[in-house]
Amino acid sequence: MSKKGLLIVVSGPAGSGKGTVNAKLIERDEFVYSVSATTRAPRPGEVDGVNYYYITHDEFERRITLGDMLEYTSYCGNYYGTPKTEAERVLKSGKNLILEIEVDGAMQVKKKYPDALLIMLLPPSYKVQEERLRGRGTETEEKIRERLEQTKNEVVKAPEYDYIVYNYDGESEKCAEDILAIVRAEQLASARNPKAAINYFAN
Amino acid sequence: MSKKGLLIVVSGPAGSGKGTVNAKLIERDEFVYSVSATTRAPRPGEVDGVNYYYITHDEFERRITLGDMLEYTSYCGNYYGTPKTEAERVLKSGKNLILEIEVDGAMQVKKKYPDALLIMLLPPSYKVQEERLRGRGTETEEKIRERLEQTKNEVVKAPEYDYIVYNYDGESEKCAEDILAIVRAEQLASARNPKAAINYFAN
Repeated sequence: MSKKGLLIVVSGPAGSGKGTVNAKLIERDEFVYSVSATTRAPRPGEVDGVNYYYITHDEFERRITLGDMLEYTSYCGNYYGTPKTEAERVLKSGKNLILEIEVDGAMQVKKKYPDALLIMLLPPSYKVQEERLRGRGTETEEKIRERLEQTKNEVVKAPEYDYIVYNYDGESEKCAEDILAIVRAEQLASARNPKAAINYFAN
Repeated sequence: MSKKGLLIVVSGPAGSGKGTVNAKLIERDEFVYSVSATTRAPRPGEVDGVNYYYITHDEFERRITLGDMLEYTSYCGNYYGTPKTEAERVLKSGKNLILEIEVDGAMQVKKKYPDALLIMLLPPSYKVQEERLRGRGTETEEKIRERLEQTKNEVVKAPEYDYIVYNYDGESEKCAEDILAIVRAEQLASARNPKAAINYFAN
């Protein structure tokens, strides 16, 4: 059985609680966050290789051309992306790599790395999501509407994901356990162990 | 999300410990064994509907014709099989149904009930399997050889199964936990929740 880690993409609309759930996974030794590359300048206190890999615009585009970006996006004139070489380094070490990215990026990853495990985290319903966003009281009505509108483009892609995990109120611990079960199961999937029969008789 | 139970097929060669592992699952309220139908006469102490459903040869063949056998086999002149109606009754109740059957039966189930979850339980290796069978000291050399020969036809079908779970010495508890994780993950599979997006906005 392969000891290679799994590349896990976790997407979810605003209010799905993906940050909290992923933070619970990262507490465990076998999970690490992917460090993205970006062309934007480091902000005070940010550390290269921890918050981001800070690279130049030319370097980023060179890496896109070389196929070294598992996914990337451009936002406010800057590139953000996941370097493939970095991801492979982590996976080879046997750790599971978590990519907290949006739907478009997830679709790019799926194409370039078909072994990736795609998980969509959802609030129990759109109604609950709306309540959560308004309940925060930190965003303008316009921003809330924008996020809710964006949700439609995200949730419609749920069938492209391998798993859908619902985050009920106060149950982010249960969500993290759901993801742990998914990872444990995936590591036992026969599709990930194509030499099972050969190895069985060889050992 | 559907509350329907899962139909779980567990196969494994002699010495894989599937009886012990399944017994651990059955201890839990959400798992039940499938009761097979048979044309053989009840033995002293056996109870109809508990050990088997005892039916006549004609009745069994009528049910085959009607498509009510998820799988069946003939052994020493008697039929043994899994009645579909009985399986569906259990699954509708929300419980997971465990079928401890051989590879041929598993392939029949997969064809007739594509939602079935196929798990192959294996000893860590052929060598360990052989040691386990000889270590029992309860079977003739001829019988042991026969079982080992049979194993080749079974393990070669591993890629047709969804998951391969290895039962290391003294780790049947871990195996049961592996299967629990598989079931938990499968219940979150987007393929089993095709109306996720519709339901998300409807609720």
